Amino acid sequence: MYRIDIAIIGSGPAGVSAAITARARNMSAVLYGSQRLSDKLEKAHEILNYPGMPRIKGPDLAQALRRHMRDMDIEITQEQVTAVYAMGSYFGVETASGMTEARTVILATGVFSGKPLPGENEFLGRGVSTCATCDGNFYRGKTIAVLGFGSEAPEETKYLATLAEKVYYFPARGRELDPVPANVEQIGGAPLAITGELKAGAVETAGGKYQVDGVFVLRDAVPADRLVPGLVMDGAHAAVDLQMRTNLPGCFACGDLAGTPYQYVKSAGQGNVAALSAAAYLATL
Amino acid sequence: MYRIDIAIIGSGPAGVSAAITARARNMSAVLYGSQRLSDKLEKAHEILNYPGMPRIKGPDLAQALRRHMRDMDIEITQEQVTAVYAMGSYFGVETASGMTEARTVILATGVFSGKPLPGENEFLGRGVSTCATCDGNFYRGKTIAVLGFGSEAPEETKYLATLAEKVYYFPARGRELDPVPANVEQIGGAPLAITGELKAGAVETAGGKYQVDGVFVLRDAVPADRLVPGLVMDGAHAAVDLQMRTNLPGCFACGDLAGTPYQYVKSAGQGNVAALSAAAYLATL
Repeated sequence: MYRIDIAIIGSGPAGVSAAITARARNMSAVLYGSQRLSDKLEKAHEILNYPGMPRIKGPDLAQALRRHMRDMDIEITQEQVTAVYAMGSYFGVETASGMTEARTVILATGVFSGKPLPGENEFLGRGVSTCATCDGNFYRGKTIAVLGFGSEAPEETKYLATLAEKVYYFPARGRELDPVPANVEQIGGAPLAITGELKAGAVETAGGKYQVDGVFVLRDAVPADRLVPGLVMDGAHAAVDLQMRTNLPGCFACGDLAGTPYQYVKSAGQGNVAALSAAAYLATL
Repeated sequence: MYRIDIAIIGSGPAGVSAAITARARNMSAVLYGSQRLSDKLEKAHEILNYPGMPRIKGPDLAQALRRHMRDMDIEITQEQVTAVYAMGSYFGVETASGMTEARTVILATGVFSGKPLPGENEFLGRGVSTCATCDGNFYRGKTIAVLGFGSEAPEETKYLATLAEKVYYFPARGRELDPVPANVEQIGGAPLAITGELKAGAVETAGGKYQVDGVFVLRDAVPADRLVPGLVMDGAHAAVDLQMRTNLPGCFACGDLAGTPYQYVKSAGQGNVAALSAAAYLATL
């Protein structure tokens, strides 16, 4: 089976930089992310210290990166990666549309900020899903809750509302739906916990308890060790060395996920290093 | 005595990035380097992977960096740093014009490529000098050799020729003088060794031996542990951690000096990290 050289997960400055260097080195790569590149970058007011681009606004830097990618024929695969499995000599990269085999993986997912809700990790795969595309069909005609933290939560919730009979939607600030589809109830109170017995059965807020058949937790980033079983973390960050190597041979991490400071040019620099470390690793296979 | 927050040594992408972030953070910094920024960058034909600037020519990236510095009122101090001394709570940064005290130091000198000549390190300070401005006056009316490896060697040699009675000039490729001043003899053969008894007394080539009173070795970079006594190296590179910390508290290294790959955006990213690590260190003082 054909295996790509590198699967790059995340389209912020780290992932884009890795993709650019991978292309410059003639490696075959798939860049998983969004056309928007990075929610954080898109919202950045003015960036003072991306060398060579004084006082650039976040959307303008994003535009410059997209132009660079276009110039090199780099495309973005707009699919959410739900898991990465280290298979020994390659990695299985799982998305809603199937499994892709990659010789190396570069994680550039950003850092998971905030703690998971009580019950979120415990019920994952047992009534808790992180992927509307993957699992939406299981909830046709059912009642679900959607916890909308990530930038694509409003769109994904509208999609889920076409499947489920009833949706309780708990939007984070800025993720509200307007208009709200007829079968969606938008809840103002913050979700505090996902509860249940053998599987997730309710979302609780200070104001009440919402009984559901399933819960979608839509975040921009998930803890990397949940995405990549076996990955060693250092707190919220993937543990890496100066070459951006993780504990898993052939798996690299860069950008915010690889540690502080959270800075655009630091991420771009680490993406470059990760791609060249992947090239060095590929040369040993 | 007034102490600056950061002395940044080297004006390639790493040093410039550190200076930009230092300014963005309102730290007082002195950036030692050249108006040309970086000989290597100036010669780079086309850079494919500086994200946001597709297929940019080296001189154009240098120009963009200079524009960024101008926009932030960052100036370059065009003096060669001859030594950095760790004094415990601060650093003494030595140039021909005197000693500057800095609370932190960021080394962005590039990597010293190639081995020193036999005798070069042994006779340093005993007939071997690396700084025309510092030591030229000691050789008024004498005979000297100049080994011209660095980008400023031709200009420095012309200066030394105004002091010395006779100059043997050994230019690396591209460093030739044209025209050659009357008291300079330009030698074609490569210098193989600096020899002498108690002090340097001759330069030897395959073609002959040139008796001199002193030898100037003009390189763009010197080994960092010669510049900074006590700095721990890892081969040709300063040993650093992910925060760009060296073994000396308050002293950081970034860019090519901090290890491979030698890439512009990697250097810029590390300069950014070094400046923020310096800020964190300053906060603990």
